[in-house]
Amino acid sequence: MSDLFLRACLGEEVERTPVWLMRQAGRYMEEYRRLREKYDFWTLCRTPELAARVTLQPVDRFGVDAAILFSDILVTLPAMGRRVEFSPGPTIDRPVRRREDVADLARPDPLADLGFVLDAISQLRRELEGRVPLIGFGGAPFTLAAYLVEGGGSKSFPALRALLYGDPEAARDLLDRLVDAQIDFLRAQIEAGAQAIQIFDSWGGILPRHLFEGFAAGPAARLVEGIRRPGVPVIYFARDCAHALDLVAATGADAISIDEKTPLDRAADLLGPGPALQGNLDPGVLLGGPEVVRAGVERVLASVPAGRGHVFNLGHGVLPPTPVESVEILVAEVRRATTRGREDK
Amino acid sequence: MSDLFLRACLGEEVERTPVWLMRQAGRYMEEYRRLREKYDFWTLCRTPELAARVTLQPVDRFGVDAAILFSDILVTLPAMGRRVEFSPGPTIDRPVRRREDVADLARPDPLADLGFVLDAISQLRRELEGRVPLIGFGGAPFTLAAYLVEGGGSKSFPALRALLYGDPEAARDLLDRLVDAQIDFLRAQIEAGAQAIQIFDSWGGILPRHLFEGFAAGPAARLVEGIRRPGVPVIYFARDCAHALDLVAATGADAISIDEKTPLDRAADLLGPGPALQGNLDPGVLLGGPEVVRAGVERVLASVPAGRGHVFNLGHGVLPPTPVESVEILVAEVRRATTRGREDK
Repeated sequence: MSDLFLRACLGEEVERTPVWLMRQAGRYMEEYRRLREKYDFWTLCRTPELAARVTLQPVDRFGVDAAILFSDILVTLPAMGRRVEFSPGPTIDRPVRRREDVADLARPDPLADLGFVLDAISQLRRELEGRVPLIGFGGAPFTLAAYLVEGGGSKSFPALRALLYGDPEAARDLLDRLVDAQIDFLRAQIEAGAQAIQIFDSWGGILPRHLFEGFAAGPAARLVEGIRRPGVPVIYFARDCAHALDLVAATGADAISIDEKTPLDRAADLLGPGPALQGNLDPGVLLGGPEVVRAGVERVLASVPAGRGHVFNLGHGVLPPTPVESVEILVAEVRRATTRGREDK
Repeated sequence: MSDLFLRACLGEEVERTPVWLMRQAGRYMEEYRRLREKYDFWTLCRTPELAARVTLQPVDRFGVDAAILFSDILVTLPAMGRRVEFSPGPTIDRPVRRREDVADLARPDPLADLGFVLDAISQLRRELEGRVPLIGFGGAPFTLAAYLVEGGGSKSFPALRALLYGDPEAARDLLDRLVDAQIDFLRAQIEAGAQAIQIFDSWGGILPRHLFEGFAAGPAARLVEGIRRPGVPVIYFARDCAHALDLVAATGADAISIDEKTPLDRAADLLGPGPALQGNLDPGVLLGGPEVVRAGVERVLASVPAGRGHVFNLGHGVLPPTPVESVEILVAEVRRATTRGREDK
């Protein structure tokens, strides 16, 4: 079967462009909504059988070329001693604002604290039987720090900015701890069977260039280095980083996931040669009807520089009001448009 | 006295770099908090005497080089028939989702519907007695459309994306109406005495390049053209537009306000020759203590290309936890560092 996705991430030549979608399992699918009627979000994440079941829903329904573990980037935080609740955005209790708070954070033991993730991965590898590769994932150090310091999401992250400028030493200590925690966690995911890792840096893009290097890209680079394993590609999702794509490339990730704002040819110029590209259809396209979906797919495909590794994806997660038919059309269109030698057969 | 700010916006040579700050009147000032104990936000905006008083607070306290009318970009929406409430983020009743909703929007009559803004401007011009120029402002058409369609702020603007992709015709109609409304409103502000206009495009930056041109930059360009008046500079605030600064320049605004993410030299390269630059200190710098503020000011000043018009400002609004001392240091440092010929005297 299919290692198409892994080879494309590593920049190897492929017969056709592989496709998967960020948040491909979720509210827009009836199968998922039915499960959510019975279980809350954390229960789905923390129960290996349920997480595995949700993970497989889009693989079974759409035939995407990769499965991504159903989980949340914030699972690391409770393992560090901070409770997380969703209502619906995340709230983290006892935000990390001072040195003492940083020193107080526990170092997670993946087996003891995050075994439910590892069990879900092992179970999924058995159930997938090699049909498609399984992607593990985790939050980038900066993004986890943003949640820990701010105590949740934010428009302007005032507490986080206060720490970065007011006590950069403490911020660096926090990031070092998060790098270590995520190296342990993502290595354990690989050992449990994850065949690729995506690092989600949802908030790194809020940083000015002069901070991005030290607080986002640098820690991410140490994380990438710490989990590098032959044949296991690492993808770095850099949202809203048009001002810093050269610094993003310096993380050393095998592939960079680009948001919908920057066309892939332009992104490739800014990244420089090297990493494969993932992305970057606007999730909004899926709300626009069949012809809009097909045209959107063509626009993305036309923007990929010749010879560059490419994994088709959205620029961000599937939006909840997305009709499943749009995802079906997307997957079919990527297949149709990129299958090489189709005319010769 | 001082037309420093106006001349810098127009790219003329100046004796020193003028400085003002977005959201320079607000919660971080005790004078403001005292007024807010007595009046809610809308009452401050809608009562000319109060709006004028708040406008002058930072001018009196910090000696900034421009006053900006205390108001809100959303004042246009009630005049179009949509109520706005703050709790604390804005909520707009009866979101505009379909063609019929667009057709149902009223065209505001600035004198009848927004007289409180115009009265505040006239009163301020009298009270300022030429001390510093007065900036009027309004929302960019796209940003107002985003609020009208989504019904408030949003992380991913699904309803807005659904309209842009699902019924682009209706979206264009909506934007045309907003361009017309804002031309009338901003012209009336200039007639009432506003000496410069800033157009806030808080959300344009969420758009991919292929949509930005048609839905954000294009309507903004028509607005700029519609209010052009000799000697009255127009500033376009382009938040999160690192992926589209060339298209931002095409709006024809005299000055472009750049967020903190992109250094000004890099922004100037992307904008091309032409508009003056405004910005772009990270508001977080003001949370870091005197030395951090001074270093931050120096970093911004060092990034301004030689000979390019520059108005010192933040990359975004002043954050509520900002100490007033930081703003004092900022203003003093910009003065000290940019006053020409100081050594010769």
